[in-house]
Amino acid sequence: MASKTGVEEPQQTEKAAPAAAYSAGLEGVPVAKSKLCRIDGMQGKLYYMGYPIEDLASASSFEETAFLLWHGRLPKQDELDVLESELRRNRALPQQAVDFISMLPHTAQPMDVLRTMTSLLSSFDQNPERSPESNLHRAIAITARFPTIMATFHRLRQNQKPVEPNPKLGHAANFLYMLFGKEPDEATARVMDMALILHLDHEMNASTFAALVTASTLSDLYSAVSSGVGALKGPLHGGANEEVLKMLLQIGDATNVETFVDDALAKKIKISGFGHRVYKNYDPRARILKEYARRLSEKTKFSRFFDITDRLEAAMVARKGKQGIFPNVDLYSGIVYHQIGIATDLFTPIFAIARVAGWTAHVLEYWEKNRIFRPASIYDGPEPRTYTPMSQR
Amino acid sequence: MASKTGVEEPQQTEKAAPAAAYSAGLEGVPVAKSKLCRIDGMQGKLYYMGYPIEDLASASSFEETAFLLWHGRLPKQDELDVLESELRRNRALPQQAVDFISMLPHTAQPMDVLRTMTSLLSSFDQNPERSPESNLHRAIAITARFPTIMATFHRLRQNQKPVEPNPKLGHAANFLYMLFGKEPDEATARVMDMALILHLDHEMNASTFAALVTASTLSDLYSAVSSGVGALKGPLHGGANEEVLKMLLQIGDATNVETFVDDALAKKIKISGFGHRVYKNYDPRARILKEYARRLSEKTKFSRFFDITDRLEAAMVARKGKQGIFPNVDLYSGIVYHQIGIATDLFTPIFAIARVAGWTAHVLEYWEKNRIFRPASIYDGPEPRTYTPMSQR
Repeated sequence: MASKTGVEEPQQTEKAAPAAAYSAGLEGVPVAKSKLCRIDGMQGKLYYMGYPIEDLASASSFEETAFLLWHGRLPKQDELDVLESELRRNRALPQQAVDFISMLPHTAQPMDVLRTMTSLLSSFDQNPERSPESNLHRAIAITARFPTIMATFHRLRQNQKPVEPNPKLGHAANFLYMLFGKEPDEATARVMDMALILHLDHEMNASTFAALVTASTLSDLYSAVSSGVGALKGPLHGGANEEVLKMLLQIGDATNVETFVDDALAKKIKISGFGHRVYKNYDPRARILKEYARRLSEKTKFSRFFDITDRLEAAMVARKGKQGIFPNVDLYSGIVYHQIGIATDLFTPIFAIARVAGWTAHVLEYWEKNRIFRPASIYDGPEPRTYTPMSQR
Repeated sequence: MASKTGVEEPQQTEKAAPAAAYSAGLEGVPVAKSKLCRIDGMQGKLYYMGYPIEDLASASSFEETAFLLWHGRLPKQDELDVLESELRRNRALPQQAVDFISMLPHTAQPMDVLRTMTSLLSSFDQNPERSPESNLHRAIAITARFPTIMATFHRLRQNQKPVEPNPKLGHAANFLYMLFGKEPDEATARVMDMALILHLDHEMNASTFAALVTASTLSDLYSAVSSGVGALKGPLHGGANEEVLKMLLQIGDATNVETFVDDALAKKIKISGFGHRVYKNYDPRARILKEYARRLSEKTKFSRFFDITDRLEAAMVARKGKQGIFPNVDLYSGIVYHQIGIATDLFTPIFAIARVAGWTAHVLEYWEKNRIFRPASIYDGPEPRTYTPMSQR
């Protein structure tokens, strides 16, 4: 009955599980042990493998930070070179995958496309090996392909020819290159790289948990990542950064902010970009992004959205700060992407392009001591009763 | 900050969640309240909405049982007629979906194909409505299409022309018809129908939970069902029924059973088809399926697999019954499907063809009082430390 890969040891099935209290949404309930990420919500601090997010955002790259989570330590130069090279080699999609994308309706939602293509890639994976080593290479290949999938679909839906990946560019710069068909300037590439670092992992969030639950049956990495994409799509999770931009358009001008906030609070309408289940202080990612958003708005001389957001923050913190409600990462990521010229419905896919490294790192870690998620539920339905034949209903 | 659809009410974010004990795999931890299904593991009983599985298996149909879970009650005749008609109308796939399937490598794993096609269907859903009513129709349409996706792929990979759905046949019979190109006899159709009823729901299992976690971000039904398919694929969950048939082939003959069992137990190799986290007694679904397997083996005069399984059960119960380890549903489903002539790698997809009704019923129920799954994790990584520049590593 026992397997080396975990789960359902006879000893474990024998003893009854301890009764546990019900916490809706599993709030406060630990579901796994992990070395990868730590959030200090009261202090507003975020660490990957012990390194503060501020240090990584300013000094590291997406590739290096992904290495950190996949291997548990910062790489030496030659190790980083090897990873960067493997990522670059894996950027191109199989031709059949491009053919699939070209058959999709142009109206398809990008997150749906990303989920479908992640799932499809499994059927082109010829490697039967399921070792941790082969799964790490799978994680790298999936991560490498996420930007290509999204850029390819975006070009095609605009009736533009997809742009081949440029092996001279890093992960973030190449994504912008494939999207726009020209190399980004260094500052823009750096902002995108930094945004990817900020979104790379975030402890046990809903999409990471969805990936783990799926992976826990010893299903494959494509299944796990597809679940992550599907969960991230939801407006209560990754979809929130698109909502912020829609809200800014609705507010229209900084002078309307206070009226908007008071009205929304009175009507209990959700104000996107604020509050977080874990952070009860300023989200450190929002602080970093805000500074970049400010610089971009000065550089581009387009400051309307930044001004609205800045005033929105002040208004919300004045009214809700005492309740632990502060800006979260979504408040400023949207305006940064908008200033770079990225379509609104690609904001959540960019979140996924970063987070896929975190999802896979968590799955690889979980598989080391896998245990299937087979929770309980509280039955509140009818008592046992006899089946009523159709004629007596 | 508050939305009618749930989650992150200001009041809720303020109070700290109660500290909860860590239970690996969330064993014994309730994650939702549900009226749909109840397992009495000690007594070996299973109920859908209070009705014993034995009654439903003998008197109901897949369609009627799906109605029971979607609506919470048994249908009147005209209500059942409406549902059956809607299922039949939705069986055919959009032509583009068929084109996609025809482009897949014939070597693709059926569960991968099912996950990809579920995800793809979202891009052909033109209805922007997200009401409970529209999601119920979506659930019906997805359920209607699962058999068509699998039969279409199976025909194409065998270089056979796909068979159009037959609107005169019920859900189970039509699946066999599309698979084999001829109408099944009544007894065979009944066995398949009954097998679908038995697999339709099973409380908070791993794939249902994966669907709920994904759905809880208010993502869409396609995302939720894709997660369910991905989780079910794993060998610790739906994949187990394929493993049983491989094991029977390995045992080869009933006279080898005891040696095989003793050897496997000594080496702690997993014996598929036995034991369950919840059932500590005979799985009632196994009991029902065993009787059908016996009848089929008598009818077809092919009893080798049944004889092996019967003796395997006796050997295992003698050695492990005291520890609460008994046959589970997977032990007998595989030989039933094999006797019907179904390819081994379609066993898990059949599980999905049934369970999709359960997944969607659980998601629709969860969305009534949705709360995002945003659990905690236990951090066991390094303490905060300073980023080391590359030159100092």
